Amino acid sequence: MTTTSLAVLGARAKVAARALAVASSRDKDAALLAAARSVRAATAQVLSANAADVARAERSGTGPAVVDRLRLDEARVEAMALGLDALVALEDPVGTVVEGYVRPNGLRVRRVRVPLGVVGIVYENRPNVTSDAAGLCVKSGNAVMLRGSAGALETNRAVAAALRAALAETGLAEDAIQLVEDTRHETVEEFVTLRGVIDCLIPRGGPGLVELVRERATVPYVVDGDGNCHVYVDQFADLDVAERIVVNAKMQRPGVCNAAETLLVHAAVAAEALPRLAGALAGVELVGDEEARAILPGIAPATEQDFASEFLRLRLAVAVVEDLDAAIGHIARYTTGHSEAIVTTDYSAASRFVREVDAAAVLVNASTRFVDGGELGLGAEIGISTQKLHARGPMGLRELTSVKYVIEGDGQVRT
Amino acid sequence: MTTTSLAVLGARAKVAARALAVASSRDKDAALLAAARSVRAATAQVLSANAADVARAERSGTGPAVVDRLRLDEARVEAMALGLDALVALEDPVGTVVEGYVRPNGLRVRRVRVPLGVVGIVYENRPNVTSDAAGLCVKSGNAVMLRGSAGALETNRAVAAALRAALAETGLAEDAIQLVEDTRHETVEEFVTLRGVIDCLIPRGGPGLVELVRERATVPYVVDGDGNCHVYVDQFADLDVAERIVVNAKMQRPGVCNAAETLLVHAAVAAEALPRLAGALAGVELVGDEEARAILPGIAPATEQDFASEFLRLRLAVAVVEDLDAAIGHIARYTTGHSEAIVTTDYSAASRFVREVDAAAVLVNASTRFVDGGELGLGAEIGISTQKLHARGPMGLRELTSVKYVIEGDGQVRT
Repeated sequence: MTTTSLAVLGARAKVAARALAVASSRDKDAALLAAARSVRAATAQVLSANAADVARAERSGTGPAVVDRLRLDEARVEAMALGLDALVALEDPVGTVVEGYVRPNGLRVRRVRVPLGVVGIVYENRPNVTSDAAGLCVKSGNAVMLRGSAGALETNRAVAAALRAALAETGLAEDAIQLVEDTRHETVEEFVTLRGVIDCLIPRGGPGLVELVRERATVPYVVDGDGNCHVYVDQFADLDVAERIVVNAKMQRPGVCNAAETLLVHAAVAAEALPRLAGALAGVELVGDEEARAILPGIAPATEQDFASEFLRLRLAVAVVEDLDAAIGHIARYTTGHSEAIVTTDYSAASRFVREVDAAAVLVNASTRFVDGGELGLGAEIGISTQKLHARGPMGLRELTSVKYVIEGDGQVRT
Repeated sequence: MTTTSLAVLGARAKVAARALAVASSRDKDAALLAAARSVRAATAQVLSANAADVARAERSGTGPAVVDRLRLDEARVEAMALGLDALVALEDPVGTVVEGYVRPNGLRVRRVRVPLGVVGIVYENRPNVTSDAAGLCVKSGNAVMLRGSAGALETNRAVAAALRAALAETGLAEDAIQLVEDTRHETVEEFVTLRGVIDCLIPRGGPGLVELVRERATVPYVVDGDGNCHVYVDQFADLDVAERIVVNAKMQRPGVCNAAETLLVHAAVAAEALPRLAGALAGVELVGDEEARAILPGIAPATEQDFASEFLRLRLAVAVVEDLDAAIGHIARYTTGHSEAIVTTDYSAASRFVREVDAAAVLVNASTRFVDGGELGLGAEIGISTQKLHARGPMGLRELTSVKYVIEGDGQVRT
């Protein structure tokens, strides 16, 4: 098998990016509709390629959770097509004037949204990322280089071929979607150092991948990091609300980044709240600090590591805190900056929590599970940024753009 | 001489950042006014420290341009104080609601500007950066770690001491301003890898420093890069306007990043425009491509390297281009993404140039020298970003902030 070098793929992506940057919304939407049709029409090929990937994964002893994420069926392929269709209804951010004003010397200044250029995605065995990311990039006028995993290579090839055919069919540059077929582990490092090619790298994977990007990347990137999310039940919490939110944040989908991993309870209500919450959390393995175990003697002790962990499963660390300051302090120590919630009826506690907790999202009397592009109205998301530069929280089409100063004059010079 | 370790300085900065993040505009402004007074009151100490730095630089054979940037006098110290005073009049971005809306399920969502946290600055022999950067960071609620050069250490110590005294005097955390006194070259690498401490690194220096940051930094950063800026004189340029702009862009202050380095002239007007522009550019060393030299036989040939260079002095590369496409193509090949200008009276040429040229700023009939925080109304700038993520173009107070999602509900959970 020969694969095209990253340098060649990158050069093609750059040329395509220049063309796509000035494509009209109408043309991009037509390409997205064609891409959805093309994916539907290729269902048989995609499923056949996927069956080969799945068989290979099973032969090599890959765990069932990973195989499940890898496995496609007709419904999952249709979901990919629907995702592409849905992008058409979203507003194209390109060309939006963010602000505009006139300077005293008559210069007309405006800041205009423009595509980033070439977006690089590194991801694991999730073939839906191939179509989701490509669709978001096309809609926002960016070329995309998709560096999926070896385990999903056949599937990704089939999906990417369908998407590229749609671009070509509708007159856009098919090179705007590039699948990196060299999936050897060591080439990830080459990918994250494609300086002058990749304008924005988005790693979609576990802590190992994020660490590699932080340590090795020389291209600009936005980290989609872990979510060690806390729910703090305040002294003045409505315990009905607290129960509903804690159960939802922990149990509704425990394997995702916006699920709760630690429960903090104010000491004044711990004796009443903890037994009730523990009862509602049936099926969740609880571990607690000394104060929590004094109230819930059946649970195991929580280690320092527990409070620092994103479990991504039905395990929850519990701590009793003396007051709001202690809750904010605990969060400041362990937060990964994703989503942090308070349950309270007290105005001052809510205000202080919102101001003082440093995270992409702070929530009052709502489940951490709402921190999601779809739930917040972005339409679709390419990741959730846990960093502070460029984008913070769910990243949609707007976060796939930059701005450009446009300055118009009549011969002004500087004196 | 003992210096405090970076880890200790960083820990102090983080604590101070949490306090400063929730300080009121009134308190921050009071601290800035006190800082201006404090710098004025310390003029004698600052000048004495600076005299020692200058003497050391001269003994070690430092070039006159560098010594000039290092040298302070009473007027320059007063300018530092005036810069701090001027920040008071600017709007505090912290707390600004960028957008707000209600979701169908009743969740109230808003995005609110918040400080970045700890800003790191690496800079060279420019003592004014110490007060300018510290002032901008205080106003925007950030702590700052200032890693200046060995050559300016005594001066920076005197200035930082004056600034820190003002914070303490007005009740803000003096540790919000940290001067890194270990200025050994090898510790720059340690500084740019202070993960978990520095939320945004801004290198203020030459290509060597920027390259070190790109290759080595593991903390988030915004690159203040080179400006290989072009002025394109179109077929339909008003040559009076062209002359004014080219002269201003090249000659008004040749040593800065928004000065022009290459002149592109449309072939249809080259025979008329080039002799006239060359005459107006008296004192500028011109180098040209073959077509330019056919019209201006006295000038030396321009090499590939000339077209790729930010000269920062009175030298200008000149090329004749066939048409607008060739001009845009030349710029796409050589631009550093800073500032690019067209001179034209043609609507279509201006529109295409604005859309198709990929740079932080594109200008029509105006000098590239306007791409500056002060000239664009930002009030003050901490640098000019030539990257596309987070900030692009001049960075003011707004670019020293991030946003936070605040999500308020009444017990909503996700279904």
